[in-house]
Amino acid sequence: MGSAMATRLVQAGHEVMVYNRTAAKLAPLVALGAQPAQSITAVAQHGAVVLSMLADDAALAAVACQPDGLLASLPRGGIHVAMGTHGVAAVEALEQAHRAAGQELVCAPVLGRPEAVTAGRLGVLAAGEATAVARVRPLLESLGRRVFDLGAEPRAAAATKLANNILLACAIEAMGEAFSLVQKCGATPAAFYDVLTDGLFASPAYTIYARIITDQSWDKAGFTVALALKDVELALAAGGRAAVPLPSTDVCRQRLLGAIAHGDIRKDWAAMALEQARACGLA
Amino acid sequence: MGSAMATRLVQAGHEVMVYNRTAAKLAPLVALGAQPAQSITAVAQHGAVVLSMLADDAALAAVACQPDGLLASLPRGGIHVAMGTHGVAAVEALEQAHRAAGQELVCAPVLGRPEAVTAGRLGVLAAGEATAVARVRPLLESLGRRVFDLGAEPRAAAATKLANNILLACAIEAMGEAFSLVQKCGATPAAFYDVLTDGLFASPAYTIYARIITDQSWDKAGFTVALALKDVELALAAGGRAAVPLPSTDVCRQRLLGAIAHGDIRKDWAAMALEQARACGLA
Amino acid sequence: MGSAMATRLVQAGHEVMVYNRTAAKLAPLVALGAQPAQSITAVAQHGAVVLSMLADDAALAAVACQPDGLLASLPRGGIHVAMGTHGVAAVEALEQAHRAAGQELVCAPVLGRPEAVTAGRLGVLAAGEATAVARVRPLLESLGRRVFDLGAEPRAAAATKLANNILLACAIEAMGEAFSLVQKCGATPAAFYDVLTDGLFASPAYTIYARIITDQSWDKAGFTVALALKDVELALAAGGRAAVPLPSTDVCRQRLLGAIAHGDIRKDWAAMALEQARACGLA
Amino acid sequence: MGSAMATRLVQAGHEVMVYNRTAAKLAPLVALGAQPAQSITAVAQHGAVVLSMLADDAALAAVACQPDGLLASLPRGGIHVAMGTHGVAAVEALEQAHRAAGQELVCAPVLGRPEAVTAGRLGVLAAGEATAVARVRPLLESLGRRVFDLGAEPRAAAATKLANNILLACAIEAMGEAFSLVQKCGATPAAFYDVLTDGLFASPAYTIYARIITDQSWDKAGFTVALALKDVELALAAGGRAAVPLPSTDVCRQRLLGAIAHGDIRKDWAAMALEQARACGLA
Repeated sequence: MGSAMATRLVQAGHEVMVYNRTAAKLAPLVALGAQPAQSITAVAQHGAVVLSMLADDAALAAVACQPDGLLASLPRGGIHVAMGTHGVAAVEALEQAHRAAGQELVCAPVLGRPEAVTAGRLGVLAAGEATAVARVRPLLESLGRRVFDLGAEPRAAAATKLANNILLACAIEAMGEAFSLVQKCGATPAAFYDVLTDGLFASPAYTIYARIITDQSWDKAGFTVALALKDVELALAAGGRAAVPLPSTDVCRQRLLGAIAHGDIRKDWAAMALEQARACGLA
Repeated sequence: MGSAMATRLVQAGHEVMVYNRTAAKLAPLVALGAQPAQSITAVAQHGAVVLSMLADDAALAAVACQPDGLLASLPRGGIHVAMGTHGVAAVEALEQAHRAAGQELVCAPVLGRPEAVTAGRLGVLAAGEATAVARVRPLLESLGRRVFDLGAEPRAAAATKLANNILLACAIEAMGEAFSLVQKCGATPAAFYDVLTDGLFASPAYTIYARIITDQSWDKAGFTVALALKDVELALAAGGRAAVPLPSTDVCRQRLLGAIAHGDIRKDWAAMALEQARACGLA
Repeated sequence: MGSAMATRLVQAGHEVMVYNRTAAKLAPLVALGAQPAQSITAVAQHGAVVLSMLADDAALAAVACQPDGLLASLPRGGIHVAMGTHGVAAVEALEQAHRAAGQELVCAPVLGRPEAVTAGRLGVLAAGEATAVARVRPLLESLGRRVFDLGAEPRAAAATKLANNILLACAIEAMGEAFSLVQKCGATPAAFYDVLTDGLFASPAYTIYARIITDQSWDKAGFTVALALKDVELALAAGGRAAVPLPSTDVCRQRLLGAIAHGDIRKDWAAMALEQARACGLA
Repeated sequence: MGSAMATRLVQAGHEVMVYNRTAAKLAPLVALGAQPAQSITAVAQHGAVVLSMLADDAALAAVACQPDGLLASLPRGGIHVAMGTHGVAAVEALEQAHRAAGQELVCAPVLGRPEAVTAGRLGVLAAGEATAVARVRPLLESLGRRVFDLGAEPRAAAATKLANNILLACAIEAMGEAFSLVQKCGATPAAFYDVLTDGLFASPAYTIYARIITDQSWDKAGFTVALALKDVELALAAGGRAAVPLPSTDVCRQRLLGAIAHGDIRKDWAAMALEQARACGLA
């Protein structure tokens, strides 16, 4: 994902310095004109804006807090744009640390996969101190189709990304329940697919996942059960922190855990519907 | 709804006899060319196909089972097309009764409101014995845009309609959870509305209900909490009968009951999001 | 159950007339001194107080409402003491019908099985108009160990019985969750049994069901999954009527439906723990 | 708690060295004969067995991992007996760290409050390598009434403690549901209290919490909502790690979050019933 994003920034004419723990991964970007860095410090000291795209909160904390990390090396007034999907607690802690160091954190998770970046269809959810967001907005606009302004609190962008993901989790759970109900009442999945994708729900969330459920094609994972569980748990943790009970999100977590208990951890998370099928004796 | 459907059938050139407990309601249809009936028996003996559009299972049972009802008066070989939203148990019982009387039941609930009928956008979910469905198909096609074939068991169409409704209930519940989460993390509902209606969820189910939630306009009810509870309970009863646990549907029922406990029974069912807001101290 | 109760009343010296649809079942009671009746009418006209102990709401409605039923034959001022486990809606409807007929309904479900009756350990939950309850109290006291006064509304006793049953359902569900958790973390069921029955939970609800779970002895049913589902659904229906969301009771219903989907309908309802074990891959 | 336990050990004749970050807190123990330590290192080097009683996983990690902590200072062959309520992940990580240092971890959380220690009624749940458990067993037996053997994996004791706590959480949740149901159906809490504490549930878990619910005396906190949430979340995290869905435990977490959202964070966790009362419009 980071690679697709850096490619797009270079192609848009931005001067880009890139860093990856595995230096070899940088070769294609360097071929396009990006400047390779040997360390996080090198990146931080090169420009006033650093974008991170990291897999989880632990990686984000490491990149920010390790001795040669962003907190130590980004100049005062520098901006860290965290673009991964992160937890609210991690973003709050990081925001405070950057502020204490005279830096700014902009939280800017994205909606879309690498293909969406390449196709210029990425959505970017940006939140942070207004001047900082304004400064990085041109960069974010280069990255995708639309930049959403989520306000002055970085955590609001993190929460919005997580909320979007639980909407999808709940939609898949609901499809699993609906498919199993109609099947046990004599309808075929294919017939139900036609009904549900025809009107009220004619959007990618439903057409894509209803297709996978109908075809039982969860072995080809676009987004695994394991990754889905991570995001759902981040959403629940955000709810815990903000005192927001999220009962149908809890159902999604239960479903994902059940899927894992039955060996589906590497399947596409549409396998939530397989787990529901098991729960009612259909699979 | 029945009136909009009868109007459309008359306009399509079908010979239509109409009955309503309140005879005065027939006047507009008669003005269009429909023939008024004084009793269910009169309707049943007039043609071989009778369409019913009734509010609930009790009304359906009455129309079918009362002494001058359809079971008693429809000729052998006649077809009862039940187009209301009914429970699986009621449909199964009615199918057996019609079969015992040498009649056929086609279950054909619809997707769409009266405006959709008038605009020719209705979807019809048809299930029943194949010959019977074939005979009534031209009528059903006159009624709307598309007739879905749900197979030979009438209950399959009933279950499909209920499954479609729980998909929507779960989507509203998920939106309620998502909106409350982002709000308690510093985002505005309006900003979240923009995000969620932009991509994966750009379908009427989400744009319509996210709009109501954002505007808090649940006082103008399109579909009330009371009616929603009825349908959700029919879906849960279908699940009970078929041994299908439906946990996120249960969450929707809990939410609707909470809404009722707090005085929202006549509000639009988007008030599920208001109830979630209460549950986390936002309202 | 009814037989055990009638036996106890006769032994306490009450004059008892007994009726059962299967007359042969009355022989042992007649041998003890009870007077056999040929019809419900005969019972109703014999005394001013009629006790019913029926399996479900349908049987109660039949006994009360059929042409020769209690409503038609009980004299004005007569009292019907309904001692089965019934739904709140059924009890409310019956109360109104009796009142309209100048009769009284006392709702008096019991806590305990036939052995408890014989041993004089039955608990009786009585609710109804105060004078009526006072009149039947000596009878109820003959039946068991303690009569609880639940107030003037018959439905309060019905709800209390159902509430007691959901407490037990929830306890079994919680044990299922707890046992599965400790097992997957390396403890044996036997070790956990010792812990949980030792202190806070040293009561029959836990010692009895933790024993069955530890021994996996659910094939010997004391109270089946099917009967448990009936009571849990009555409780949920009572909650629906009174606008009381009951989320952990919903979990119990889901669990029971899952058990049924996996073939356990005739097992003891402690098999809820077996179903939880399946849900996490332990069974 | 730690103080009550140390007192008991001294009184039992054991030679005890004590440490607390706040040295002043040691005075009463020193007066009884305990030897005060200036540091964790001093304790670790004094004897081969160190007992810790810490508030949470962060404190445990600090005491073990800080430069002068147990891992660094406990001699090879030494035993750390962790007696707080800790998460499974924390215990697993600590066990590995101790093993790598040639030390043993015995996990031995307790059942009971300080009063139970003083009265000699404490239950101790012990798990760890068999020889290590055997060595510390006399100490654990001095501490309380009964030592339960949970096997060779330290996490099994941690999980058992958490499982015990979710049993109690689920019981309180169920009581909240049951009390609200009967109240909305016309029974008084006091009448229901009598019923529920009379038979199946006549154990402290029910008599204590049903009393608080009936009296609405949650303002006097024995165990706060905040602490309960911590334990419930540890149990859910253990379930997540072991792929065990815990749906009724999730309901308890939702309830506690709702209570916090409504300002009850410092109330006794019996206020889960207050939150349920709110959810159905009773409070």
